[in-house]
Amino acid sequence: MTVIPESHTDLLERPLFGHLGTLRPDGAVQVNPVWFRWDGELLWFTTEKRRHKYRNIVKNPQATLSVNDPDKPYRYLEVRGTIEEIVDDPSTDGFFTLAERYGMTFERPIPDAPHRVLLGLRPRHATFQ
Amino acid sequence: MTVIPESHTDLLERPLFGHLGTLRPDGAVQVNPVWFRWDGELLWFTTEKRRHKYRNIVKNPQATLSVNDPDKPYRYLEVRGTIEEIVDDPSTDGFFTLAERYGMTFERPIPDAPHRVLLGLRPRHATFQ
Repeated sequence: MTVIPESHTDLLERPLFGHLGTLRPDGAVQVNPVWFRWDGELLWFTTEKRRHKYRNIVKNPQATLSVNDPDKPYRYLEVRGTIEEIVDDPSTDGFFTLAERYGMTFERPIPDAPHRVLLGLRPRHATFQ
Repeated sequence: MTVIPESHTDLLERPLFGHLGTLRPDGAVQVNPVWFRWDGELLWFTTEKRRHKYRNIVKNPQATLSVNDPDKPYRYLEVRGTIEEIVDDPSTDGFFTLAERYGMTFERPIPDAPHRVLLGLRPRHATFQ
């Protein structure tokens, strides 16, 4: 069971850019464009341990993804939830799965491989239009 | 003087959709697609008083805008700041200025006219790539 409405699942299946909101330790909201992948249960992101986004999530695992439809910009999906999985990705296999989904090619090894992690967000609430 | 880098001002000048992060009273981050307008000093948004986004901002004026370049999605600008102005817009003139910028037409009066407000965000910090 998921809170994602079937009517808007396409926004998670298409390789669209999302905007991920996290909470900074100073109480300000941070929002960054992100790649993502939906496995039907969790939303997966790739980042690295030296980024603010990662440090924010370690301190406060709440995160929110916003995606809109470039073909109909008023059609959107907002997913609020909790980062439930933080998986080290030094092999960068997770990174390359996402890169491929977004049609990007990189040479292995990528320079920040030792620091790469995957984040798995469990949706708790969705708003959409 | 502004914290917006000249190299990325085009992302505020083009009628792109932004994603606005605000903080909910329950501590979760809310992120919604938004229209915006940059006057060189403040970023302006239109909303209405019955929306969560508005109620969030009244409680906590911190807000963050994320915009990426649809032509080069890795080019982005994140603007963190404070909603410094909340201006009633029952005439909806502010709403129509934004609608026009985004190529949208509506018949006057729009049904939620009495509730419309404009929000003016003063940038305090920008990150970009």
